[in-house]
Amino acid sequence: MLMCRFLTYSGPATLMSPLIFEAENSLVMQSKYAQKRKVPTNADGFGLGWYANHEDPIPATFVSVDPAWSNRNLKSIAEKVKTGHYFAHIRDASKGMPVSQANCHPFQCMHYLWMHNGRLDLFDSFRRALLNGLSDRAFGLIKGNTDSEYAFALFMDKLDFKQSASAEDLELAMVETIREIMRLRKAAGADTNAFINFAVTDGFHTIATRFATLETSQPASLFFAKGEITQQNGEVDIVVSDAPERQSIMICSEPFTEEDEQWVKVDRNHIVIAHGNVSVMQKPIELPYQVSL
Amino acid sequence: MLMCRFLTYSGPATLMSPLIFEAENSLVMQSKYAQKRKVPTNADGFGLGWYANHEDPIPATFVSVDPAWSNRNLKSIAEKVKTGHYFAHIRDASKGMPVSQANCHPFQCMHYLWMHNGRLDLFDSFRRALLNGLSDRAFGLIKGNTDSEYAFALFMDKLDFKQSASAEDLELAMVETIREIMRLRKAAGADTNAFINFAVTDGFHTIATRFATLETSQPASLFFAKGEITQQNGEVDIVVSDAPERQSIMICSEPFTEEDEQWVKVDRNHIVIAHGNVSVMQKPIELPYQVSL
Amino acid sequence: MLMCRFLTYSGPATLMSPLIFEAENSLVMQSKYAQKRKVPTNADGFGLGWYANHEDPIPATFVSVDPAWSNRNLKSIAEKVKTGHYFAHIRDASKGMPVSQANCHPFQCMHYLWMHNGRLDLFDSFRRALLNGLSDRAFGLIKGNTDSEYAFALFMDKLDFKQSASAEDLELAMVETIREIMRLRKAAGADTNAFINFAVTDGFHTIATRFATLETSQPASLFFAKGEITQQNGEVDIVVSDAPERQSIMICSEPFTEEDEQWVKVDRNHIVIAHGNVSVMQKPIELPYQVSL
Amino acid sequence: MLMCRFLTYSGPATLMSPLIFEAENSLVMQSKYAQKRKVPTNADGFGLGWYANHEDPIPATFVSVDPAWSNRNLKSIAEKVKTGHYFAHIRDASKGMPVSQANCHPFQCMHYLWMHNGRLDLFDSFRRALLNGLSDRAFGLIKGNTDSEYAFALFMDKLDFKQSASAEDLELAMVETIREIMRLRKAAGADTNAFINFAVTDGFHTIATRFATLETSQPASLFFAKGEITQQNGEVDIVVSDAPERQSIMICSEPFTEEDEQWVKVDRNHIVIAHGNVSVMQKPIELPYQVSL
Repeated sequence: MLMCRFLTYSGPATLMSPLIFEAENSLVMQSKYAQKRKVPTNADGFGLGWYANHEDPIPATFVSVDPAWSNRNLKSIAEKVKTGHYFAHIRDASKGMPVSQANCHPFQCMHYLWMHNGRLDLFDSFRRALLNGLSDRAFGLIKGNTDSEYAFALFMDKLDFKQSASAEDLELAMVETIREIMRLRKAAGADTNAFINFAVTDGFHTIATRFATLETSQPASLFFAKGEITQQNGEVDIVVSDAPERQSIMICSEPFTEEDEQWVKVDRNHIVIAHGNVSVMQKPIELPYQVSL
Repeated sequence: MLMCRFLTYSGPATLMSPLIFEAENSLVMQSKYAQKRKVPTNADGFGLGWYANHEDPIPATFVSVDPAWSNRNLKSIAEKVKTGHYFAHIRDASKGMPVSQANCHPFQCMHYLWMHNGRLDLFDSFRRALLNGLSDRAFGLIKGNTDSEYAFALFMDKLDFKQSASAEDLELAMVETIREIMRLRKAAGADTNAFINFAVTDGFHTIATRFATLETSQPASLFFAKGEITQQNGEVDIVVSDAPERQSIMICSEPFTEEDEQWVKVDRNHIVIAHGNVSVMQKPIELPYQVSL
Repeated sequence: MLMCRFLTYSGPATLMSPLIFEAENSLVMQSKYAQKRKVPTNADGFGLGWYANHEDPIPATFVSVDPAWSNRNLKSIAEKVKTGHYFAHIRDASKGMPVSQANCHPFQCMHYLWMHNGRLDLFDSFRRALLNGLSDRAFGLIKGNTDSEYAFALFMDKLDFKQSASAEDLELAMVETIREIMRLRKAAGADTNAFINFAVTDGFHTIATRFATLETSQPASLFFAKGEITQQNGEVDIVVSDAPERQSIMICSEPFTEEDEQWVKVDRNHIVIAHGNVSVMQKPIELPYQVSL
Repeated sequence: MLMCRFLTYSGPATLMSPLIFEAENSLVMQSKYAQKRKVPTNADGFGLGWYANHEDPIPATFVSVDPAWSNRNLKSIAEKVKTGHYFAHIRDASKGMPVSQANCHPFQCMHYLWMHNGRLDLFDSFRRALLNGLSDRAFGLIKGNTDSEYAFALFMDKLDFKQSASAEDLELAMVETIREIMRLRKAAGADTNAFINFAVTDGFHTIATRFATLETSQPASLFFAKGEITQQNGEVDIVVSDAPERQSIMICSEPFTEEDEQWVKVDRNHIVIAHGNVSVMQKPIELPYQVSL
């Protein structure tokens, strides 16, 4: 039912291919053979967003509507471009959502990247109200027609398009975004579940959520891990490291290795806050009212 | 500067390939070697909309972002599918407008098809106001982000989404659409020229405009012709016919034959009204105020 | 492991959408949720080949590398174009085979269409020998690089590019094609299993095979059915009919309806021979030597 | 008639966007508004091949069949990825040559990249003979169906797939490739002109040719320049520099700046040999017999 997959990485400059193609349960393997979430496939486009290892704060993006597993450009970029901070996303379009480049995650604005795994159910019932509430600048960001991109525009408004945001600013804007979505849905009478696993980064901090609006339903899965990524005989592992400069922090829909020790499952309706490759923690999302409508 | 091309056909059931590929100045030839309008190329997508020759009033559409001249699917459809009424469009995206399937003409709603050659200049200055004025139903039509599709949503509102519209209904809704666009542009201070060559059909009537908002500038070209289409030794011609059932009416950006006798150049700020393959005429677009803002 | 799906139809002129989109186990449903063959997905392109209902003997084709389920052009063609004889194919590329339009089935030459579900295993070991044995005309047919298209070129040679072939001609050329592939594989020491479910048509006759080179392994599944296709409340069924003009014959990888009574499972290493919508039968493929190498 | 465009760069690590997008006559500008060669457009795909600035000798490639000017992925890669050595190519498909990713230049094998501007006229008359003469390894390289890729396979054979080739090895293999093509064409009676502007690199040396088989016809244009690339107020220039580490060497179909002083026009039937960003010279291609057949 919920079928996107995403992954965030922060750590030493490295190729993207190990986590995207080579790991036992890499993002592309997840997209062909979904496991933890028992869904058949993700083949409605994919995207990468990465920060180059030089002075430029604006990330590069690469998106395509072809299936990830057969895209030679994706393979080439993943195997040749090094980066210390990236987002990767594989899309399974919600029913009725068009498949197009403009709808591929991650979405980018300024030095921020955004992606979403989930669905703002009954989106059409509150889409116009959401749009009406946006500033002109946020309104102008929207190039496609997914709930995910509208949510990003809302986030940018909540963040006030800050040139320099602290982790607290990002966390606050994220919670405000979810709060506003809940308010809009309530006003529209949208009482089904909404699945809200968002991720945002400014190139250093990464904020992600695992959230469902109804208590009777589980949010989509989310995990994080901290450690040093090793690759021996083709096998990707995460091991404990005491060399901070070799340490990585990853947040993803599903663990990409079967070595589950390093993986922490994010709790329901929690927010994950990572500072580069230094630290990562989760805490409950504080809302002013009950989660279930 | 204005670089799309379009063509409408109504007449005996026939293949689409003669006018799209085979004529001396066919739509695809126009797209590779622009002549009358001195622009280099149209390679930002194309589209067909056609009415099947059976009970179904809803037209088929086929759109692609590949260049028309190399698209084997377009070639196959043009050479194999017969229809008595169709629209064809080749797009050259206005600067900054994304190239995507959702932005390819013709646009379809109910049994109506819509296309546009031109540009609502400074569209961003009045886009949001246009959107705010739409009914929820018209708002819901918009899947892409071109001025052309927004104008179609506005037209459908002006037509009140009628299940059965007369030529007068269509003409009136068309003029009201242009009027509203001029009003919105004026309110936004958009005082540059807007090029408004629209075409709409319900499967029988075809309405098209040749319009520019400023008197100091020429609208994009528009022509129509009535006659029997013949093809001998590969050469496509239009000849006078006294057999009404073999007669066709075509409206297009540029004549697709060099035999110019049959072609009537549409005057500035005029509207063309065609009843199937029976009759076609032009008349001035009556506006309540001066055309130039 | 073997993951394409195909379907052939011969019967009254009809839209293609019921069997491709609407039936309980339609071709597109099969592609998203594979059942009988326990494989996750087919998302490496699809194709249609159909004969127009008029004088033209050359079929139209429409192919794309996008997933079938999200392709609006496929949907439009399936819902709007009527035909009395068509082939449909959904591809899951064998490992390493490029995904491209040129590799999408069905393949067309003259008035023939060809498609394949399976894999000529170890193809690279005998590809060059196959190529060397082709006539210049057959050599010139090959635009892509799949085993399936090479096999079609071989078939056209075995058929001697006949302008008018009987069912016996087609059957004989088909068996000769398989025989030659087995000979080439043997010469190359290719002793793994090859899965050879081919289908060919001239617009009236349809010939299909269910074949595996090793006795220890089952060929990919193949079924056929004869009857009248009905659709009530969206449910597609096949019922017995005594009106020959309403009767259809379908051959496909998997039944597209759950009403299995009409479906005949093709036996291992058998060939199916259908005369339009009139008659269909299967018989063993006679080879001069043992099937297992 | 001859309508591709290419460009090679060797110099300090830099973004690719100035030469591809930003220069007055950048590769993408050339593709929209062809000038020196009076042809309308190049919109049948493009490609980049670049060497990453780290230990990996195998270049990355990025190719697409979309028009270059509207491709957001190309823009992102050109603006974000730094490299000290790259090839770029914009394709205008020869008539009848399919547009597909597999046919996009540059072609890659081992650490070599190859591209072609021109056409081996009457290719079908000697294609099969060329194929027959290839080693199995070179035969296996061919994934598409362009004359350009076949020529690359031939080149790799002439180079003997050397792991480490000197400039002389590359030059010799290049001349042998042209010689063999002329021999094959002569044997097939192909007496029209063939346009052979090839370029090859191993990541350090770059070899390019400007060659036409008939004396009565000019080869496609080719230029080279040496100097420091500067960019001020958006204007790209090439200036003389005495800092060797800031010096670049570029070879291209057309100068990308109007400051023609630095540009050297390559003479007819000459070969250009460049050592990284250090030195570049041209000399006549020595053939054992007359150029004109």
